[in-house]
Amino acid sequence: MLAEIITIGDEILIGQIIDSNSAWIAQQLNSIGIRVKQISSVSDNKDHIMASLNEAQNRADVILITGGLGPTKDDITKTTLAEYFGVSLVQNKDALENVSRIFAKYNRPLLEVNIKQADVPENCEIILNNNGTAPGMWFNHGGKIFVSMPGVPHEMMYMMEETVLPKLKSIFKLPTIVHKTIVTAGEGESFLAEKIADIENSLPSHIKLAYLPKLGMVRLRLSAYGENVIELNKEVEQYASKLIERVGKSVITDKDIPIEKAILDEMDASRLTLSIAESCTGGYLSHLFTQHSGSSQVFLGSVVSYSNNAKETILGVNPVTLQQYGAVSKETVIEMAVGALHKFKSDYAVAITGIAGPHGGTADKPVGTVWIAVANNQKTYAQMFKFGNKRTQNIERTSITALSMLINSIRENP
Amino acid sequence: MLAEIITIGDEILIGQIIDSNSAWIAQQLNSIGIRVKQISSVSDNKDHIMASLNEAQNRADVILITGGLGPTKDDITKTTLAEYFGVSLVQNKDALENVSRIFAKYNRPLLEVNIKQADVPENCEIILNNNGTAPGMWFNHGGKIFVSMPGVPHEMMYMMEETVLPKLKSIFKLPTIVHKTIVTAGEGESFLAEKIADIENSLPSHIKLAYLPKLGMVRLRLSAYGENVIELNKEVEQYASKLIERVGKSVITDKDIPIEKAILDEMDASRLTLSIAESCTGGYLSHLFTQHSGSSQVFLGSVVSYSNNAKETILGVNPVTLQQYGAVSKETVIEMAVGALHKFKSDYAVAITGIAGPHGGTADKPVGTVWIAVANNQKTYAQMFKFGNKRTQNIERTSITALSMLINSIRENP
Repeated sequence: MLAEIITIGDEILIGQIIDSNSAWIAQQLNSIGIRVKQISSVSDNKDHIMASLNEAQNRADVILITGGLGPTKDDITKTTLAEYFGVSLVQNKDALENVSRIFAKYNRPLLEVNIKQADVPENCEIILNNNGTAPGMWFNHGGKIFVSMPGVPHEMMYMMEETVLPKLKSIFKLPTIVHKTIVTAGEGESFLAEKIADIENSLPSHIKLAYLPKLGMVRLRLSAYGENVIELNKEVEQYASKLIERVGKSVITDKDIPIEKAILDEMDASRLTLSIAESCTGGYLSHLFTQHSGSSQVFLGSVVSYSNNAKETILGVNPVTLQQYGAVSKETVIEMAVGALHKFKSDYAVAITGIAGPHGGTADKPVGTVWIAVANNQKTYAQMFKFGNKRTQNIERTSITALSMLINSIRENP
Repeated sequence: MLAEIITIGDEILIGQIIDSNSAWIAQQLNSIGIRVKQISSVSDNKDHIMASLNEAQNRADVILITGGLGPTKDDITKTTLAEYFGVSLVQNKDALENVSRIFAKYNRPLLEVNIKQADVPENCEIILNNNGTAPGMWFNHGGKIFVSMPGVPHEMMYMMEETVLPKLKSIFKLPTIVHKTIVTAGEGESFLAEKIADIENSLPSHIKLAYLPKLGMVRLRLSAYGENVIELNKEVEQYASKLIERVGKSVITDKDIPIEKAILDEMDASRLTLSIAESCTGGYLSHLFTQHSGSSQVFLGSVVSYSNNAKETILGVNPVTLQQYGAVSKETVIEMAVGALHKFKSDYAVAITGIAGPHGGTADKPVGTVWIAVANNQKTYAQMFKFGNKRTQNIERTSITALSMLINSIRENP
């Protein structure tokens, strides 16, 4: 069973927004055994949308479309779909009730453009939008299924979870795809490949191995295609065990989770707590942890000490240390880590200080110079890194490196 | 001049990574007057890649390809391109030198798979990869330009900035596209549309207006197509002024920048400083500010007070307040804001406390309940919000709302 995702909207094509919807939809489809053949982003242009629908219909069984359903002039998905299917638009009672309900709830008058949102191609079944005014639409046409949903992420997600996925599962006898991901850090892609070459070569043809490198990490993904989920899982686990044994210490986790989630899980299991003192990463490392539900069991809090004053008064860094060694130094990062450990009374503390750039570098400490420390009650360890000169990358890379140092430190102190 | 972007890799199609490369590439192309016709993500499959190259060649003049250039088995872009152009792979001296240099730098032995990275289709001009081992490739074929680059973002970005964009500019006489974005907050898309309908209707055919709604904000984007950049800019500015006048107080900025960047710019111009005390947003609001270069002029720091203990000992929230009213209350959020103001000695402080979910809600304070406060030396103002039950959305929505409250507060106190 093959699906294709089409996102409609000039804002993606001029790069004003990143298409995160498609990745989410692809994940959901994969989880029920539907493979995504292609993802296409096309413009708010009738001919272009028509052509992409045609191409998709030739390649896939299910075509999921997002975007272009707003009340304004540039939104032409609905009229284009009607033309594609050769039908007219008709007012849908349920969709109109939904629009009216939403406007009544917010005490706003119902405008002509909003009433028009209840008009849909006559060959569709509508999908109620619990979070917005544009209805989703389900079409059966030429033996294929077309689904049109709004581009607003939470509206689309609600429709997928409540209607589209259950309906697809009920209609099709779906094949099974099992994925298993091993997250590694500290080894390059080609070294891993060399290390596991014979295991990779021994994989049967229905199991594939992919390398997904990102900022000092490489995820190894095994994907198995077949019918019997128990059998596939067993096979994949066997190959995963071989890979894990071979790769050794560089394995962070055998779950497809980010490194900070692996840390939260391990710390939670050992009832350990964490605090952070971050300077150049500016809250990003804290955000990585706190985006995960349940992080409050482990993460007590952090201080983003952008100014020297904050380093002194909140974290208790000695003003003399700052004067003598500077804010980006081994001495300062250690005092920050120890300060956080004491302030938050946590079992572990991570501290980061550096020059994210693009400005603020010196000959001595160029942009990209970063000190990271990990402290617990027995030991404090600090290391210096030299990253590049792009601010966003430095922030991300520093955070990943800090996570790597932290998990190694935790594993060395059982 | 039309371009098409093709990203190659199963990891996008199974939703394991979000394609952020394409948005960046699209922005860069737009800035030099090349419109992106379509973005397609296709699998690591020879026939599929060949078909997408064919389709793209029929639609566009320039085809930019990312991904599938790694040293491992699943990377087949290079051999597929050679087959598409009907040529062989040959070893490229410069590419080999580059690979050797990188491995020597890190003191690692050069493996067979790495040496193979220097093999390229014989009809290409290589693009040096300063940040990695896979060379980029530039092809002239059938009157069209094909460029293949690695999927690793910073490797691709370097090639684009150093080679691809300058080369495209030197080859083509490019038309001009001028974009102008007005960022608004607090009004829905359809209300804005109704308010500015007559201005929208009066736009000449070479100027388009798009509505880009996101989490309580709507960006209005004017795009003008033509030849004369001065003339286009003048026209677009005229229509933008009309729109700004009509929309009134909901306009945050007339630059295409995020709301926090507008705040940083305004506060910097008035030499105002900011601190943050955030609980349920967990560092995300601080990260929004600190991702911008120069934010340290305004942003002094923040406390992420996930635990009650941190609220008390670092921010000075009264334990009695926490006991009597709870952590998510008007009383607590005000004490957090005042605490941050004093701790960091800033001119403004923002405080946030709430229940991001999915757990931790009560009948009284369900998931999505958030208190936000803005304080300066004269005044503290707090407001309660009820958002949804998705953690990530609550974190983002809360942050955007806090930004909205902050900018309004700053503008009311000139």
